[in-house]
Parts: sequence; C-alpha cells; structure tokens
Amino acid sequence: MITTPEDYIESLRGLKKRIFLFGEEFEDYVDHPMIRPSLNAVAMTYALAADPAHAGLMTAESSLTGQRVNRFTHLHQSTQDLVDKIKMQRLLGQCTACCFQRCVGMDSFNALDVVTYQMDQDLCTAYNPRFREYLAHVQRQNLVVDGAMTDPKGNRKLPPSQQADPDLHLRIVKEDTDGVFIRGAKVHQTGAINSHEILVMPTRSLKAAEADYAVACALPADAEGLIYVVGRQASDTRKLEGGKIDVGNYRYGAHEAVIIFQDVFVPWERVFMCREYAYAGSLVELFAAHHRASYGGCKVGVGDVLIGAVQALARVQGTEGAAHIKDKLVEMIYLNETLYACGLATSYEGRRSPSGTYMIDILLANITKLSVTRFPYEIARLAQDIAGGLLVTLPSEKDFDHPEIGPLLRKYLVGSDQFPAEWRQRLLRLIENITLGAGGVGYLVESMHGAGSPMAQRIMLSRLADMDAKEACALKIAGLVDGGA
Amino acid sequence: MITTPEDYIESLRGLKKRIFLFGEEFEDYVDHPMIRPSLNAVAMTYALAADPAHAGLMTAESSLTGQRVNRFTHLHQSTQDLVDKIKMQRLLGQCTACCFQRCVGMDSFNALDVVTYQMDQDLCTAYNPRFREYLAHVQRQNLVVDGAMTDPKGNRKLPPSQQADPDLHLRIVKEDTDGVFIRGAKVHQTGAINSHEILVMPTRSLKAAEADYAVACALPADAEGLIYVVGRQASDTRKLEGGKIDVGNYRYGAHEAVIIFQDVFVPWERVFMCREYAYAGSLVELFAAHHRASYGGCKVGVGDVLIGAVQALARVQGTEGAAHIKDKLVEMIYLNETLYACGLATSYEGRRSPSGTYMIDILLANITKLSVTRFPYEIARLAQDIAGGLLVTLPSEKDFDHPEIGPLLRKYLVGSDQFPAEWRQRLLRLIENITLGAGGVGYLVESMHGAGSPMAQRIMLSRLADMDAKEACALKIAGLVDGGA
Amino acid sequence: MITTPEDYIESLRGLKKRIFLFGEEFEDYVDHPMIRPSLNAVAMTYALAADPAHAGLMTAESSLTGQRVNRFTHLHQSTQDLVDKIKMQRLLGQCTACCFQRCVGMDSFNALDVVTYQMDQDLCTAYNPRFREYLAHVQRQNLVVDGAMTDPKGNRKLPPSQQADPDLHLRIVKEDTDGVFIRGAKVHQTGAINSHEILVMPTRSLKAAEADYAVACALPADAEGLIYVVGRQASDTRKLEGGKIDVGNYRYGAHEAVIIFQDVFVPWERVFMCREYAYAGSLVELFAAHHRASYGGCKVGVGDVLIGAVQALARVQGTEGAAHIKDKLVEMIYLNETLYACGLATSYEGRRSPSGTYMIDILLANITKLSVTRFPYEIARLAQDIAGGLLVTLPSEKDFDHPEIGPLLRKYLVGSDQFPAEWRQRLLRLIENITLGAGGVGYLVESMHGAGSPMAQRIMLSRLADMDAKEACALKIAGLVDGGA
Amino acid sequence: MITTPEDYIESLRGLKKRIFLFGEEFEDYVDHPMIRPSLNAVAMTYALAADPAHAGLMTAESSLTGQRVNRFTHLHQSTQDLVDKIKMQRLLGQCTACCFQRCVGMDSFNALDVVTYQMDQDLCTAYNPRFREYLAHVQRQNLVVDGAMTDPKGNRKLPPSQQADPDLHLRIVKEDTDGVFIRGAKVHQTGAINSHEILVMPTRSLKAAEADYAVACALPADAEGLIYVVGRQASDTRKLEGGKIDVGNYRYGAHEAVIIFQDVFVPWERVFMCREYAYAGSLVELFAAHHRASYGGCKVGVGDVLIGAVQALARVQGTEGAAHIKDKLVEMIYLNETLYACGLATSYEGRRSPSGTYMIDILLANITKLSVTRFPYEIARLAQDIAGGLLVTLPSEKDFDHPEIGPLLRKYLVGSDQFPAEWRQRLLRLIENITLGAGGVGYLVESMHGAGSPMAQRIMLSRLADMDAKEACALKIAGLVDGGA
Repeated sequence: MITTPEDYIESLRGLKKRIFLFGEEFEDYVDHPMIRPSLNAVAMTYALAADPAHAGLMTAESSLTGQRVNRFTHLHQSTQDLVDKIKMQRLLGQCTACCFQRCVGMDSFNALDVVTYQMDQDLCTAYNPRFREYLAHVQRQNLVVDGAMTDPKGNRKLPPSQQADPDLHLRIVKEDTDGVFIRGAKVHQTGAINSHEILVMPTRSLKAAEADYAVACALPADAEGLIYVVGRQASDTRKLEGGKIDVGNYRYGAHEAVIIFQDVFVPWERVFMCREYAYAGSLVELFAAHHRASYGGCKVGVGDVLIGAVQALARVQGTEGAAHIKDKLVEMIYLNETLYACGLATSYEGRRSPSGTYMIDILLANITKLSVTRFPYEIARLAQDIAGGLLVTLPSEKDFDHPEIGPLLRKYLVGSDQFPAEWRQRLLRLIENITLGAGGVGYLVESMHGAGSPMAQRIMLSRLADMDAKEACALKIAGLVDGGA
Repeated sequence: MITTPEDYIESLRGLKKRIFLFGEEFEDYVDHPMIRPSLNAVAMTYALAADPAHAGLMTAESSLTGQRVNRFTHLHQSTQDLVDKIKMQRLLGQCTACCFQRCVGMDSFNALDVVTYQMDQDLCTAYNPRFREYLAHVQRQNLVVDGAMTDPKGNRKLPPSQQADPDLHLRIVKEDTDGVFIRGAKVHQTGAINSHEILVMPTRSLKAAEADYAVACALPADAEGLIYVVGRQASDTRKLEGGKIDVGNYRYGAHEAVIIFQDVFVPWERVFMCREYAYAGSLVELFAAHHRASYGGCKVGVGDVLIGAVQALARVQGTEGAAHIKDKLVEMIYLNETLYACGLATSYEGRRSPSGTYMIDILLANITKLSVTRFPYEIARLAQDIAGGLLVTLPSEKDFDHPEIGPLLRKYLVGSDQFPAEWRQRLLRLIENITLGAGGVGYLVESMHGAGSPMAQRIMLSRLADMDAKEACALKIAGLVDGGA
Repeated sequence: MITTPEDYIESLRGLKKRIFLFGEEFEDYVDHPMIRPSLNAVAMTYALAADPAHAGLMTAESSLTGQRVNRFTHLHQSTQDLVDKIKMQRLLGQCTACCFQRCVGMDSFNALDVVTYQMDQDLCTAYNPRFREYLAHVQRQNLVVDGAMTDPKGNRKLPPSQQADPDLHLRIVKEDTDGVFIRGAKVHQTGAINSHEILVMPTRSLKAAEADYAVACALPADAEGLIYVVGRQASDTRKLEGGKIDVGNYRYGAHEAVIIFQDVFVPWERVFMCREYAYAGSLVELFAAHHRASYGGCKVGVGDVLIGAVQALARVQGTEGAAHIKDKLVEMIYLNETLYACGLATSYEGRRSPSGTYMIDILLANITKLSVTRFPYEIARLAQDIAGGLLVTLPSEKDFDHPEIGPLLRKYLVGSDQFPAEWRQRLLRLIENITLGAGGVGYLVESMHGAGSPMAQRIMLSRLADMDAKEACALKIAGLVDGGA
Repeated sequence: MITTPEDYIESLRGLKKRIFLFGEEFEDYVDHPMIRPSLNAVAMTYALAADPAHAGLMTAESSLTGQRVNRFTHLHQSTQDLVDKIKMQRLLGQCTACCFQRCVGMDSFNALDVVTYQMDQDLCTAYNPRFREYLAHVQRQNLVVDGAMTDPKGNRKLPPSQQADPDLHLRIVKEDTDGVFIRGAKVHQTGAINSHEILVMPTRSLKAAEADYAVACALPADAEGLIYVVGRQASDTRKLEGGKIDVGNYRYGAHEAVIIFQDVFVPWERVFMCREYAYAGSLVELFAAHHRASYGGCKVGVGDVLIGAVQALARVQGTEGAAHIKDKLVEMIYLNETLYACGLATSYEGRRSPSGTYMIDILLANITKLSVTRFPYEIARLAQDIAGGLLVTLPSEKDFDHPEIGPLLRKYLVGSDQFPAEWRQRLLRLIENITLGAGGVGYLVESMHGAGSPMAQRIMLSRLADMDAKEACALKIAGLVDGGA
C-alpha cells in the first residue's frame, strides 16, 4: 500500500510508459522536470493524508473494506462525505496552487458505482460487484487512477458513427473470451502520466448504432498499446530553465496528455460497461455533475493563493492601504467564496442513490460550474489590476543574478524598502503563473472547459430546472388558475 | 393562540394603532386596500403552517416550550433548522411574490438570544431568561413581531451623539422603577402595521458616550405614543383602483412604515439591553448576518415567480422557442439558484453558539447578500428583455373592459391565438409589478438595502476573510517562507 | 408657423382626437394632467429652439426650403448635422429627464427620404418629391410628427400573412382614385397624442404575399377613424394627485399610446410607399439605425440628471465624501459617457446617401443601442445603491404637509442639517421616478426595446461585421494563407 | 531617410546598445529571435506607409517641414488627423496582432509640443522651437522614438523625494554648460530596443522640492551609460524553439525593457524641460490622454484578429453554426467595436490647442481607456470558451512532426475533415498567444496598465466630469431651484 509521497513516487518508477514530449520519447518521467511538478502535486494528496492535522479530512472509512482509505478512492457514504470532499479540494488547492489531478478518478468511481448498480438492476448484469472489487483493490493499494472520458470528437456537428474516421471516439474494435480490445484516443487527460491506472468511460450519450462506443473499463497505465503525448502549456519550458523564481510555482504544476489507445486489450474483469449504450449518457451526466461540483473546492483553493499573493504584493509595493486596492481584494474574496458556497450547497443537498453511494445535487452542481467558467477570469483580471505592469515586464531571474546588472535591477525594482526585491519578483511570478502562465491553464481554461464547456451546463439547467412549477406559481399569483385573484 | 390566517386577521382587529397614510389618519387598517395585501402575505405564514403538506417545514419543536411552534418564532436548534428556514422562505416567496415580513422578527429573536446570553455571562445580568420568557409568550400566542432596528441616522458622517438632533437615533430619555421611556424613530419598517409587537434594537455599534442609545426592548404594537406613517411605493395606488389586473399582484404585497416613538414607556420585563453599549455592535452584526442569509431564500422564491411568469409570457407571445429567449431564461435560473446555493451553504455551515441557538456562517451570509444586491437586478433586466415593450405601454384594464375599445384592444393585443389577451395582460402586469412596480420595492431596492447596503457587506468581508492564512499559502508557494522553493 | 411652446400648445387645441384612458374617453387632452407633462416635454423642443443660447444646435438650414427650421424636421446634410442631432438630444434629456418624443418623426423623415429616393431610382416612381413636398410643409409649419412603425405582431412565430387575424399588422384594405384605406394598429406610440401628424411605416421586411402590408403614408393626427388608447406607466396616477413632489418629475414626462386605424383614408399625395414590399425591410433598417443612434444622445441626458440627483442627494445625506460613493459616481459617469461616445462616433462616421441626406454608420448605431440596453440599468442600480432604502419607504408629501406628523417627519427624515428635509424628499422622488417610476418606463424599458429589442441589434451586428476580413487577418497571422509564416 | 522596412532594419545595425536578456549581454539584437518579431512589428509601420493602398492613412503632411511624413512622427493638425491616427492603429493591430510600439513616441511628441509651447508662453523659455527642430529631424529621418515616461516608483505610498533611494525616479544629477546628466531608470519600455531615440519625460506631477525630477529630453538610443534589460513574457522562449506554429504569432510580437540611465549626458539642444516642475503634471496628463485614446485603435485591431481566428476555428471544428457560438461572436464584436467607437469619438471631439497641435477630448480618452481595461479580458474569455480545451492541451508541433506519433496526432486531433489538422493547430496557437501567451502581455495586461492603471482613469473622470452642471439639471427638474416645479 502506498502511504507516503515517497512511496508514491517510487511506485511510479515501476511503470514503464511510452511518453512523448517535444517530439521525443523519454523514459524517466518521474524525474523529468516537465513532469515532476505535477507529480509533486499528486504526492500532496498522500502527504496531507499522512499528516495528522489533515487525516480526518483526507481519509474516510471505506464502505468496501472497512479500512481507512484515502478520500480520493472513496465512495461517498453521506452528505458529510460530499462536503468533506469539497473542503479537501480547497485545502489541496491552497497547498499546490494548481490542479492536483486526482479528482477525476474519484468522481469517476462515484459515477460508475451508481450507474453499474443501475445496469445490474435493470439488465441482470454483474458489473457493480466487479467494479467494487476493482475499487477495493485501488483503495487497498491507494492508487492514482486517471478518469479518461473526453474523446477527440472530430467534427462537432457529427455523432461518433458519422465521423469521417470512426476512431475519433474510442470504441471496442474486437472482443474475445478474455476481454475486449479498444481503439481511439482520450484528450485533455490531466495528470495521466502520474497515474497507476486508466479508467475509460464514454464521452457522450449514445444510440443503438453506436454500441461499440459504449465502453467503460480499467487498465494499467502501462498497458501495451498505450501512448502518451504531453500537451504544451503557457510558459511550460520555464520548468526546464533550472531556476526557481521565473517558473512562478516551482514545486507544483499539472500536465495534460493525449492518450492513444492502439487496440489495447482489457480483460473482462476490468470491463464495467460493454455496449450498454443506453447507460452512456447517464454515466457522463453523473460524472460531469460530480466533477462540476469539484471545481467549487479546488479552484477556490487556488483563488485563495492568488488573493494571498496579491495582498502580499500590495504590501511589498506600498499600495495595501489604498481604498480601491482594498475594494478589489474584497471583490476577489466575494467571487471566490461564492464558488465555495455553491460547491458546499451542492454537496449538502446531496442524496443517497440506490447503490448507497451519495450523489450531489445535479442542478446545483451545474450552477457551481457555470460560475467557475466566469469568476476565476474576473479574479485573475483584478489580480492583474492590483499587480501592476511589472507583472509582464520584469526581467528574468538570471538577470537579477548577473554580477553587473543584478544589483542595478535590485536597486531599481525594489518596492517598499521593508522587503527585498526578490519578494516582489517571486510574488509577481506566482501571479503571472496563475493568471497568464502554466497555472492559468488550470485556473482559467480548465475552469472554462473542465467537466464540460459552459453550454453543457446551460443545457443541463434548462433540463433540470422545474419550469412547470415556476409557471404554476406565476399563473396562480397572476390569477390565471384556480385560487388566483 | 393564533392558528389560521383568519385568526391572525381577527387578532389584529383588537389592536388600535395610530396610522397615517397620504396625509390622513385611519383606523380600519385590517381592511384598508393599501394594507390588506401585505396582511395577506403575512397570513400566508399561518396558512402554510396549517397546511399538512408544509407543516414540517413551517413549524418546529420549540426549545423553550417543547411545543410545535411556527418556525418564524423559533430559536434555531440545528443546522437543519437553519436550512429549513431558507427553504421555508423560498416557499413563501413562491406563494406571495413579495416580502412576507415576518423574517425580521425571527432573525431578531435568534440574534438577541445569543447576545443576551453573552451579556449575562459577561456582566451577570439576567437578560437572557427575561428574553426567553418573552419569546415563549410570542411562541405560545404565535405572534407577529416587527424587528425595529434602523434609525433615521440624519447626517451619515456623524455618530448618534454628534447629530444636530439627538433624537435621530432612538434612545432612552428617562427611566424609573417600572421601566424606561424611549424616543426616536425607526424607518424602513416592513410590515410594521401587521405586527402584534415591536422589538426595538440599536442600529449600530456604540461608544460609552452613546450609552442611552443602547437599548433593546419589546412593546405591543399599539403602545401609547407610537405613530405609524406608511411609506409610498411605486404604483401603490393601483391597489385603490378596484381592479384585479393592473395591480399586478392582487392578493399580496408589502408595506413599509416609519414608526415614531414619542417617549414610549417599556416595562423592565420587556427590556433586554439597557445601556450596555459594548454589545450593540455585536447584536447588529448577528441580526444582520441572519437577515442577509434570509435573502438567499425569500428573493429566490420571488425570482421563481418572475421566471415562471416570463416563461408563460413567452409561450403566450409565441417566442418560447427562440434560442436567445431560452438562453436568457437559463441565465435567470443560474442567477436565481446561485443565490439559493449561497443561502443554503450559509445555513449548512452554521454553528452552535454558547446559548445553544445556532448561528449561520457569517462570512457566507455576507457573500449571499452581496449577490442579492446584484442578481435580482439582472434577473429583472432579462425579464424586461423577454417581456417586450408592451410591459410599459399596455392600456389599463378599464380600457379592456370598455364596450367600444375593449374588443379592439383584445383583438390587437392578443399574442398567440391559443391564449386570450387577458393572459398577456395579467402576465405583463405581474412582471411589471416585480420589476418596475410595488413588487420591485421588495425585489430590487430591498434586495439592495435590506439588512444593510452593499458597502456594509464588503466591510464585513474585509474583516472576516482570513487574509493572513491566504498570504501564508501564497508565500509558501512562492518560496518566501520555510518549506518554500 | 409654430414658434413658441405656447404656439405649440395652442395648435393642438384645434385637433380633435378620440382618446381613451382608464376606460374613459376625454376631449381636453391638452390640459389633462396625465398628458400635459408629456406635452411640456415636446414643448421644450420649441422653447430651446427659440432660446438664442441653443438656437444654433436646435435649428438647421433646410435643404428643402433654405429656411432655418427646427432640427427635428430637418434632413441631415452633413456629419455635423448628425453630430448636432446627438448633442441636441443630450441637451433635451438634461432639460426634461424624460423622452421628449419628437425623435421618432425626425428619424422617420431621414429614413424615408433615402428609401423613397432609392425606390424612385429603381422603379421610376415619384415618391421622393411627394415626400419632400410633405416634409417642406412640416418644416414650414414646424409640426410634431409621430413616426408609427410598430405593429402589434400577434404570434411572434408567424409572419403577417399567416397570423390568425390579418389585421395584426397594419395594411391597405382598399384603394380608390383618391387614396388608400388602412386598417390595423400601431403600438408603443410614444407621444402620439402630442402630434399633429402620424407618419405610418411598415414594421418589418416583407415578401410578395404581404404587399398590402407595405405602406408608408402620412395623415393628420385627428383623421377620422383613428382611436388613441393611452398606456399605463408605473406610478402614472401620481400625476393626478395634485402634488408636486411625489410625482418626481412634476413638469415633464411621456406617454405611450396604442393607435387603432379603423379603415382610415389617406389621399395619394400623402402615400410614400404602396405595396413596394421589397423596400419595407430597408426602410425599417434605416429608421431603426437612426433611432438606435438617437439613444446615444437622449438617454445620456437623462443619465446626467440622474447622476446629478444622486450627487446632490449624497451631499444632503452626508455621504458625498465616502470613497465608495465617489467610485460609484465615477462608474455611472463612465457608463453614461460611453453611450455618448458611441452615439457621437455613429454620427461622425456617417456618409452621404444618394439622396443627399446623410446616414449614420449603421454598424456603430447598433453597437450604441446594445449598450443602451444594458448601461442605464446598471446606472439605475448604482443610483439606488447610493440613494439608500428611503427611496422606497418615504411617506407621501401629504404626510409631510399634515399638521401633526409633518413636523415629525421633517424632524426625523432630515439628512445633513444644511438642507431642509424637502431637498431629500424631492431628490429621492426624482431618483425613484427615473429608476422605479414613470421615468423608468423611458429610461429603462424603452432603452431596452425602443428601436428594436437587443436581439434585433445582435442580428444586425452579425450581418454587418465583416467577418471575412477578420478571418483573413487571422489566417495571415497564423501563416495559413499567402504571406503567412 | 528611412523608407522601407529594410532601411529601418539596416538603420538599427548601426546602433550599438548594451542589452541584457536571460543574464547575458548580446550585440546582434537585430537578428536575435527574441527581438526580431518585435522589430518586424515596427517595420510594418514603414511597410504600410510605403504601400500605396495605405499611404493616405499612414502618412501626413508635416506642419514643420511641409513634407509627407510618417504619421507616427506627425503633430496632429486637425480632428481628421486624430481620427486617422485611430484608424491607422486599428489597421496595424490587424496586420501584426501585437503592439507595434511606435505610438508612445507619437503621443509624446504631441503632448510635448503643447506643453513646451505653454511653458514658453508662461516663462519666456524657448523650449518649443528647440523641440520642433528636434522633431523635424525625427520626421526627416523617419526615426523610431521610444517615449520613456514610467519610473520604477519604489514604495507607491511615497513621492520621489521621500523614497529611500532618490534614484527611484529619474532625475538630473548634474548639469554643466553643455547639458545635463540624468540618472534613474524607466520601466515597461515597450519596443525600446527597436528605437533610434529615447525621449525622456517625467512620470508624475511634481512639487518644488522635486525640481530635479522635472526633466524632458531626447537622446540617441545608443548613448553612453544606457543599459537595456529585456523583460520576460509568457511563453517567450517559444521564439527560440525554431518552429513556426507553437509560437502562435511567428512574425510579430513585442518586447519590453527596463532602461537604466547611468548618469547619461544630454546636450542642451535636446533638453525640453529642465526643472520646470509645475509643468510635469500637465505633460503626463496630455501624454496619458493621447495614449489612452490610442488603445481605442490598436487593441481593436488585435481584437479583429482574435475574432477572426475564433470564427475560423469554429469552422474548422464544426461548431460555426451553433446559436451560442454565433451569439458569443456577436458579443465579441460588440465589445470590440465599442472600444473603437470610443476611440473615434475621442478624436472627433478633439480641439486645437494654442500651439496649433490638436488635442483629443480628454474626458472621452479616459472613458475609452477604462473600457480597454475590461473588454479585451471578456473578449479573450469568450475566445477561450469557443476555442475549447485543446487550446491548452495540444501537443507541440515537434510531436506533430514525429514520424510515429505525428500521423497519430493528425488522425486524432483533426476537426472537420474539410481542414487539415494543421489549421486547427495554428489557429489554436494564435488564440493561445493572444489570450494566454506572449500576445496576452499586450492584449491584456498592457490594456490594463498601459498609459496608466484603471484607477488613474477614474481619478481623471472624477476631475473632468462637470458634476456641478449635472447637479444643476437635477435640482431644476426636482423643483429645487428657480424655474423648477
């Protein structure tokens, strides 16, 4: 069982994966400077669980094994579990200022448990026990599992079966007595390389003609036929420069990857949906709802770091007392806490599903996410307002280290003389990271598109809001139905 | 004990109050068409409590008497009580489309209980038992109590003791062995005339020189020396016109009043704070927090009615299928449910206070209210967008009833021929009421200023947000403190 | 020729119209307290033109007669004319704080001149000389002309010819050697009753099957078969109460009316389009563009009054020095001046059309109007924020006049002792008028829907923005076309 | 005289500057891949001027020499000149998608001309002829001049004379018969390295004790004692990678530098202000006003590119027909054109100043800039919404070139099969560049802080808005002054 961050890092060394980055294949991803910060962020999920100050929040008693397990592998057994999830996510955001990557797996487990249970009820299949056996293994080993949902999708106007290339959505291309073979790709796979396991799910609701696309299954992250291609991020290569300042967030970060599945084999005991196309939509919806709610925790934690950085920088620059600076900080707090309030309400209003696993309130989850597609952008804009132009004109740390110009830069780019220029450098670089750098990938664009783009949330709202009940209230007040004036 | 709406209405007949409106004093306020709709809205708090479908939400087991009491008189004993309060408020908003006026009293009880308990602990006074005895009486009788906090304040730059006129904040002007005499006024008293009792509280934090202003006490609404002057609202006199359509919301409404206290006597057994100026600020803060959270329930209910009216009107006008109409409705839902999510989270995150009464999360209460000062305005704007210009150019219902032009108006102002023109009339008038009429007083301006103007919430946020913790996170990530990079 | 406000008012006495209001027909509309304020606002267009300080802006040299004419009857002959129009509108907004109703006619003239000229060129008709002869008459007499465009439209999903009732759009029902007979209605006719003439135009683009709906023509406002039904406004009956304070804006206001055309005869010399359906869309578009630009003047003037009222009230209440109050005033100014900048740019970028009359920039006109559908709402919200809750809880002026409670109200509702309570009353009532009363009809809902609802502007933007050129720029920078990287 | 882009590039080879970047000094800045794109952007100001299609806009007849000169060196002689400036800036933004760096010099010329003229009038100095002689030289040679205004400022709470280090604002440290010696630094110097000349100006209004800080002067960009340190930008080193795709905008970009002045000598004939501290504020204000207006042109051009890129990408991805995509594009257009309208109005409303040079409308310039601090952020957010998550997860172009995975990536990351995957790559990278990369430095943060942070504009608005006139309007309407009701 993996307990410490060190255990975790060592455990990955045993997994040999095919990984490409900048046109080259490389093996030692654990120590690769482009990957290591994201691995450190995942490691924090172990470190905090091992820290007595946080163990209560970070772990839970497993409904499967009765053991204390990392909450990221847990099936939520109460609304308190759902609330603790949000609080755990905020904590981790505060400790890493980036995406810590383990939520997608957790949210996938909880969605799959409910849907496999439903399938078993409806179809007399036995997916749920099979899935739970797998999950108990994950819990016992304390594994990191990448939830792989998003297909490339090709031409957005067309469903899977009508794409020019049928592989643009992942599908079963063959099956035999031992298992199935899958082909396709999954994109936007945050933290994929840091995972022990890949948990594949369909990307959308499906029709009968698209049954081959209805597949959910788990496979080891080093399964034969898997290829990982790491995506680029803003300012990504600052991680390769060797310094600690310009990178903004030296220790932590995240990565995304395209995973290509070249007719990869999955044994039956790891298959949790196989052509039951009618359940694909429900699985996507439940996963998305969980994951939309998650952003009401993690992004709030990153927001805390950004607010704190801005407050510290204002002090360094001598602007902390200006009324408009204070007011902008209040606005940032307001926006950030609104996200949190929505995340919490989504959890508190959760309900037990038939499998015993708790589901959050889906309507409120979509409300939460819709704010997440907006507020971090405004928080970032306000941060840039307070930070000042030096945010994007500051010379490199190597210039600050240069024997001739270093002293000149420190002389001229100091703020209040209470703080060395390095404080200003580091705080500006951190704010740059979150609002216009690698951290902005997670804080902004992922806030927009993670767990579905805003239009997906709007569609859910139009479906879930009880418009008939609202109309009935209005008609009654307007005197247009019985009991009216 | 008052149980039914009818009981309630009869109970008021016994209270003789001095009330002025449009320059005239009048006695039969119970049947006055300007007052009756607001009385009907309060009556709904009895009607729903008496309705088995809602009794669970509308009543609670009293911590004082052990009896089932109307929730509006209850001291919250759990976070579930706090949540149920929000849900009850949304329900009432849906049933009345206006302010139902009984929340201020409820929020005052819960604040006073905590503060009197604290005073007794600190000062060896006996205010809390005295207050609880009073509240038990309120619960047993199921009374409506007006929480009277807001003083006129005069010149906003000056504290009470430095105003040109010392009476601009209510104060103790005399005391004797039987009790105290108070002079001053309370403004913005929503529903005051519908109340059995007035519960006076100070309006702000106070200093030693202002001890006379530190007074909390209860008195019957018909106490000698009280004068009520009813405030005007937009389109208020439509209530006097005799029709049922143009008024927009025929049955329900609200009123506000200025209450003038002309050296009114209050016996000691009804005095719950007497010159303990150091506790005034805390009482205001707790009350305000409760009341700010309340808006995350009641305004959401009114929002539901407005959304429903707009949806119905779109159907009547044949625009319900347009993409932009649907999208605007989704935006209205999003904004409305965000308020609700904040209200719920504020309650769920509540905590037991030393007196046993539960307090909501004060930071989140201020977050909730700040959104309330913004979102209803945008919801109203979107409603006016969808409604179309006829919202403000529609002829009067009397014109529709005219033998010659009535048929012409019905001919020309029909929408889809599936609906009579009266549907359009009634829905437009309801939307007008909420967004640009008497209902807008409650839905908009009260959302802005009720329980304190937005700046008051911002000041609380700057005080309550733990900026040091946020800075510590940022400094650590930035590598500026131990453990940093 | 009408020169002074007094002339104007007398000139109307000669026009006998059938007018209904509150279910009653009445004759003396000139002195009717519900109509008179709107008449006063129109009269201001004469008063300012007669004032040497403003005559330069308010009049222009006619291209038809060579005489100095009121600018409201002028065909714009230069971009400076277009700019002066905007500046004139801002001035009138500042002087009336309401809609002064004469722009629709002016904007109609300028659109009709261009379109009739085009028709004559294309079809060898002689509409333009006929129209110009009519307009010269209007200029010589200095008449007020109501531009009547908006049909009731019935079910918005259906075109005129498919409505259940063919009269839901105005149409020619008969023609003979003398002229045409028209039937239908025009809604949202701002200031109709104050007009000498009605200038009818089609409401939308039309197809061959809808030729009867393609009619533009002028008729005297007292033509036989016309019926006016005055629409209700928020707080409209305050004008009937006899006081001067609660009404908010005692002197000025506006009204809207439904005009019903009961087979009204129009002689050929007043017909400017007759079944040329292919030109209906163009006429609507040009008129709408002019009128959308107009709002970049008039609403800015009303905004000036609102900002000034709020600034004065802040002084009265003692809050004028608070940083957040000052910042909100700056925000109001920013929003208001942005509207003005857009209105000005729309005019300055105008071009000569083939008829010699100048057209504003249509793309920018739609930009202007889209901001007008948003910014006044935010300005009003900020005004309500600064005003405080008394905006909607203030007792009536009759209460302030009452011998007993009047002195009490003046005692308690005073602000800074530098100002009598009446200052506060009057400023609050003015702000209420503009943001939640009769003035809000013009400042808010008319800003939303006048000259077309926001979706109409968005459709125009999607049509007028040169997306191909933008794409070409992008493809070149992206290296995807010749000359790229 | 420099005429072609080639001339320009060659002219720089003759200037030997001390430049540092990434801790190293380098000489051949003209061909340095980090600098060359910014040089190319400046070169576009020559290329378009030499292009007959644009020469009318790009050049003007000099008021000093009577020759046709590049508009970037011109003193505006009419409002048409001011308008042409804005249109030229939009064109250049469209052609480069970045800051083309030559506006600061132009805006400095026009401010300095007015202020030196005023000084000469007031003080009998002869700065204006001296300045004009210099400018005639600049026009004849067609030089690029860096306007150097922003000092480092140190602790923002303190004025120059009270900083811990007096050098935190640039100042005269010595003077002799030949000229002055200046010490200090200028930060945020966009395009400094591409300049032939540096034009120094003070950064703020100054008091008598700060006379040494009141200096305006010009010096060659390779003057002895100057050191340039290039600032970092988001994703800056992509320019060093050798590819053409990931960099997003391969040809164009911008750079900023810190310029350090180590007791640099400036001869008297290049000194245009020397200790006349009372004029420092006015110079800053005029320059800032010009430059704030400029953003109503250049950023609009970049916005055009971004809108075009998004539209093209939607086509590539098959989403171009979705209603919400079209609506978001309309919103982007609306925001972008509003900036343009404000920029145009600012120019059209300009006035001749006493020196004959035209000044824009300062109030409207500040209105323009305030929108620029907001709208590009929302445009960028909408661009990221439409672009989709691949914006930040796309693998590197080197991966697309890899023999094994390149074909796989092209297979899986294609959109509509009408376009090769490279179209998607290039458009995503361009959008990334502008919204979260090196281009975002100019499009976002420079929009926020260039020519002064938003608070600077707000302060100007509160100063320039005629609040007394607005109050007078309101008081009159409210009946509180003569002529009122």
